[in-house]
Amino acid sequence: MALFLCFVHSATKATLQLTEKMAAAGADAVLVVNPCFYKGKMDSRALIHHFTEVADSSPVPVVLYSVPANTGLELPMDAVVELCQHPNILGLKDSGGDITRIGLIVHKTEAQDFQVLAGSAGFLMAAYCVGAVGGVCALANVLGQELCELERLCKSGHWKEARVLQQRLIEPNASVTRKLGVPALKQAMEWFGYHGGACRAPLQPLTEAETQQLRRDFSTNGWL
Amino acid sequence: MALFLCFVHSATKATLQLTEKMAAAGADAVLVVNPCFYKGKMDSRALIHHFTEVADSSPVPVVLYSVPANTGLELPMDAVVELCQHPNILGLKDSGGDITRIGLIVHKTEAQDFQVLAGSAGFLMAAYCVGAVGGVCALANVLGQELCELERLCKSGHWKEARVLQQRLIEPNASVTRKLGVPALKQAMEWFGYHGGACRAPLQPLTEAETQQLRRDFSTNGWL
Amino acid sequence: MALFLCFVHSATKATLQLTEKMAAAGADAVLVVNPCFYKGKMDSRALIHHFTEVADSSPVPVVLYSVPANTGLELPMDAVVELCQHPNILGLKDSGGDITRIGLIVHKTEAQDFQVLAGSAGFLMAAYCVGAVGGVCALANVLGQELCELERLCKSGHWKEARVLQQRLIEPNASVTRKLGVPALKQAMEWFGYHGGACRAPLQPLTEAETQQLRRDFSTNGWL
Amino acid sequence: MALFLCFVHSATKATLQLTEKMAAAGADAVLVVNPCFYKGKMDSRALIHHFTEVADSSPVPVVLYSVPANTGLELPMDAVVELCQHPNILGLKDSGGDITRIGLIVHKTEAQDFQVLAGSAGFLMAAYCVGAVGGVCALANVLGQELCELERLCKSGHWKEARVLQQRLIEPNASVTRKLGVPALKQAMEWFGYHGGACRAPLQPLTEAETQQLRRDFSTNGWL
Repeated sequence: MALFLCFVHSATKATLQLTEKMAAAGADAVLVVNPCFYKGKMDSRALIHHFTEVADSSPVPVVLYSVPANTGLELPMDAVVELCQHPNILGLKDSGGDITRIGLIVHKTEAQDFQVLAGSAGFLMAAYCVGAVGGVCALANVLGQELCELERLCKSGHWKEARVLQQRLIEPNASVTRKLGVPALKQAMEWFGYHGGACRAPLQPLTEAETQQLRRDFSTNGWL
Repeated sequence: MALFLCFVHSATKATLQLTEKMAAAGADAVLVVNPCFYKGKMDSRALIHHFTEVADSSPVPVVLYSVPANTGLELPMDAVVELCQHPNILGLKDSGGDITRIGLIVHKTEAQDFQVLAGSAGFLMAAYCVGAVGGVCALANVLGQELCELERLCKSGHWKEARVLQQRLIEPNASVTRKLGVPALKQAMEWFGYHGGACRAPLQPLTEAETQQLRRDFSTNGWL
Repeated sequence: MALFLCFVHSATKATLQLTEKMAAAGADAVLVVNPCFYKGKMDSRALIHHFTEVADSSPVPVVLYSVPANTGLELPMDAVVELCQHPNILGLKDSGGDITRIGLIVHKTEAQDFQVLAGSAGFLMAAYCVGAVGGVCALANVLGQELCELERLCKSGHWKEARVLQQRLIEPNASVTRKLGVPALKQAMEWFGYHGGACRAPLQPLTEAETQQLRRDFSTNGWL
Repeated sequence: MALFLCFVHSATKATLQLTEKMAAAGADAVLVVNPCFYKGKMDSRALIHHFTEVADSSPVPVVLYSVPANTGLELPMDAVVELCQHPNILGLKDSGGDITRIGLIVHKTEAQDFQVLAGSAGFLMAAYCVGAVGGVCALANVLGQELCELERLCKSGHWKEARVLQQRLIEPNASVTRKLGVPALKQAMEWFGYHGGACRAPLQPLTEAETQQLRRDFSTNGWL
């Protein structure tokens, strides 16, 4: 009897192929999450090998993506410091939110042309404060203009105004990310006049209670 | 500028397609791991939906696969109890090794024709003891005959002999699974006269120190 | 301004003192949990030192206690293997429930007069199966006779009857340990005619919903 | 046979007594860590009850202390928001380093006279940026003047100079906290002319390799 194992983990070869397809489809850069299925073996050696292979062959620049809430792994500091020297690796989207780590990555990569980017709007101001140069934030799909305004306030040194705005963004951001996730992001987009659309399975639509929670997280902060 | 996200998570649609390909390639059954990327949203509702969709359309029977060390998620008990009633879901490979849970799953699914299978050789005897009917074990690629002998001893009630054999299998098993992983499994297969072959990247070959550790885990238990 | 830190972590000296007080109060043995506050520093070196100091000076024998659900630390295998040689260390209560680990500890300590004890009734049968010699189980405060019967069935090789009994104990046991904890244990003791009494703060009495859950976990398994 | 359990968890009564002793010994305030042994039961209800009891009876003001790396528990947001209203609770030392959470706590407690304090020097600047008013930092035992200078730069809006200083403090701080812990802190104090002294067991003195690592973390950042 033949029993085949049915799942896809992000093998290097599959990542290379997808990267090429994306470049062909018009992507200006690719955001590449670290492989994470065989967690115990995804040490710096394996990850440096993986991203180097991808960056070597990618027709467009690569941005590293560390998102431990989803992968169960944080891209190790020493791997980031090694990879930041690759000419086709542009930067890092760090969604872990460990601001000490983000500050140290900024420090250890500052000799390179390497962009450290906040991976979530909840710590966008703090990331700017410690030296990040931007963000790639789910919430920008809903409150894009407000995040641009937050960036402007931080970059121009208006920290007090920035703080007031940042504080009002934390709960809506949590709602569309770790708390209620992609289905909430899509729902909120609809409320704000964008096209969110349906989730891909296995993600499920929000329950009624979740929808109310989402609405509350926006309304108590003055966005709805 | 267009920035595309490059990773594959096991969406229901992709799983359906892979399942069909595998059946067409001759698989008698498919072992389907739970999706795990958006961990926070992979609750019982989403997982029951996912596996039901897959089992509804799969041309061959489905075995559920829970492997929290890799996915960061355990397939919830209530989802297993619900899914065990599906006529095209054969059983569960449980690699978490929580023997209390395995015993309870046996208990709660015994009214159904549902096979609970040990997902690792380290707890194979204990799993038989609490009512599992077999195992799907990485170590069987190396010590297949010995695992069959362990099964025979357990099923025929020779628990003392079983225990002696089981004890000698724990360290080799740990070595080719959570400790040194797939590269160690492939290396050990070569030692035992099978074809292990090279690992797919990003998995890396064993270091010299790891190879020595692997050899020690087999030799101190009398297998090399 | 003087700001003093207010907490007690289980320093070696405090453990020594409490051990002596307990022996003076009539304890025949002491069950000593591993210190766990400075987790990052509680490696095998520190833990071997700690338990050796305690065992050296304790007037009564010491039983090691590993309970990772509460301490966030598992007493490392190599520390257990080293400590099992101490003449005043009797055994180990292992509440982690990792049956592979328990089997390996039995194997690696069998040359010594060292008792491996199941730390929870949920995996008592499986622990006997892999070589444990007994258990120290919260549930014994409620269903003591039944646990003795389970022990008798395991020790006399009546595994099928043991399994039927074990299966009915898993949910009541989970209820009075990790699910609802000490307050549930005390409540169940009252139901079964024992004196449970009030919990010490900060533990809170069960809510009405928790009490119903507890009752259900006993009644659906035929104990109430 | 009597088998007594030997450990101290921070019961409310013991905390009350220690708080009174500290006040009698001259403490101006007490820093009270949340109880954490029965983690599963340490929900907001239990923790609010605990800290309210302590604050009600403490002769001196209470500072809440959340340090998940040691306790395995984060003091829940809703408990902090409730407790900040107590007249004898001054503030919170938050050592978790989740800057999003710290920002939200500042926001949700700003109507009260409640001080949010960075619990570690690694994120001191970021904490000031999001609205914290100070810090309680292990590293201040070694580089006290430098931390005061960092505070001054943050409070006076000299963020660029602050960032340069903050970056040089991250590695020394990690070294004397989560990486090498209290023994490293004591060793570094000796190097800087203070009295560190010996660690209390079970903490062990640094190994030679750890001492070198510690020295490197200070010297590569220009402090030694």
